[in-house]
Amino acid sequence: SSKLSADTSAKKKLIFGDRGMTLEEEINESNKYYRSHDVAVIYKKPTPIQIVKVDYPKRSRAVIKEAYFVQASTTDYNGVYQGYYVDFEAKETKHKNTFPLKNFHQHQIDHLKACQKQGGICFVIIKYVALKRYFIMPADNLFEYWDGQRHDGAKSIQLQQIIDCSIEISPNYNPTLPYINAVQQLIESGREKK
Amino acid sequence: SSKLSADTSAKKKLIFGDRGMTLEEEINESNKYYRSHDVAVIYKKPTPIQIVKVDYPKRSRAVIKEAYFVQASTTDYNGVYQGYYVDFEAKETKHKNTFPLKNFHQHQIDHLKACQKQGGICFVIIKYVALKRYFIMPADNLFEYWDGQRHDGAKSIQLQQIIDCSIEISPNYNPTLPYINAVQQLIESGREKK
Ligand SMILES: [Mg+2]
Ligand SMILES: [Mg+2]
Repeated sequence: SSKLSADTSAKKKLIFGDRGMTLEEEINESNKYYRSHDVAVIYKKPTPIQIVKVDYPKRSRAVIKEAYFVQASTTDYNGVYQGYYVDFEAKETKHKNTFPLKNFHQHQIDHLKACQKQGGICFVIIKYVALKRYFIMPADNLFEYWDGQRHDGAKSIQLQQIIDCSIEISPNYNPTLPYINAVQQLIESGREKK
Repeated sequence: SSKLSADTSAKKKLIFGDRGMTLEEEINESNKYYRSHDVAVIYKKPTPIQIVKVDYPKRSRAVIKEAYFVQASTTDYNGVYQGYYVDFEAKETKHKNTFPLKNFHQHQIDHLKACQKQGGICFVIIKYVALKRYFIMPADNLFEYWDGQRHDGAKSIQLQQIIDCSIEISPNYNPTLPYINAVQQLIESGREKK
């Protein structure tokens, strides 16, 4: 409509990110872009399922008739970028000022710690849905807050703390969520530390 | 029994690998060992499933009532070993002298090529069930045979060719299949090439 094309910011909103996509959809689209442009090979891991009963109808494909969701032992995403193993969890929140740690599960923390120990590039992508803000938070910082809560520490991370330790990324058109730029920064800052 | 304990080779057979495990079970057990000993973090990817119908019975966990198997777009296994991204496909065959290339799918080859391009350590673990022999075949060699068959090349790889280009591994007790030693060799031989 003419109203939309006259209003650049509304148009931008239409093109960039305001299509009601979930964080997972945004990352999956970005991964497709990264794979097709030889930037990185990163996939969402399939949901683990315990299959109990399968029917094999004649002249038709197999149908799973009874199955259950199984607790995942790892994170949402992994893959390879320029020789580096990349592993991360994606989390969205409707909160505006805080991020409750109960959004994480112990097995996700354990997996990220194990991967980091092996030299992987590990982090979390946090989306504040209401704020439309996206953060790449290094796993090290997550571990600090996670381990802290056991010793009478806070049960949630404040937005300002996330801003202070993370790399903020802005949604874009192609890729939808250019998070590999932040991964590159994590790699470079890791090199500096050594 | 006394007969067994007297016969070392039979005993060995009982302990090592003759428990009717599939190759996947052997690799999964090895991965568990490697993870618990901080050697590597490698997992089997879950089978991708398209879920159509889920029931949520009261006071009971969700039951998937209709779902279908979906073609995987990647390989069986990936993970991280000492900073390296590791990606591989596991294949067993009942053949004794040959390995038919139709055991592979185009998407598996494409995925291995994409990962290799990103600097991943990519290979296939081939198990000759009848021979009880295991080979780690570098992805480069697989690509050669795969691409060759399109240009009037052979439709299968001969055992001798696999022996010539692969690292043979022997089943063991812990880990069941010590394939990380071969991965280490692949990394070292890659470094020499550069
Ligand atoms: Mg998630
Ligand atoms: Mg397989």
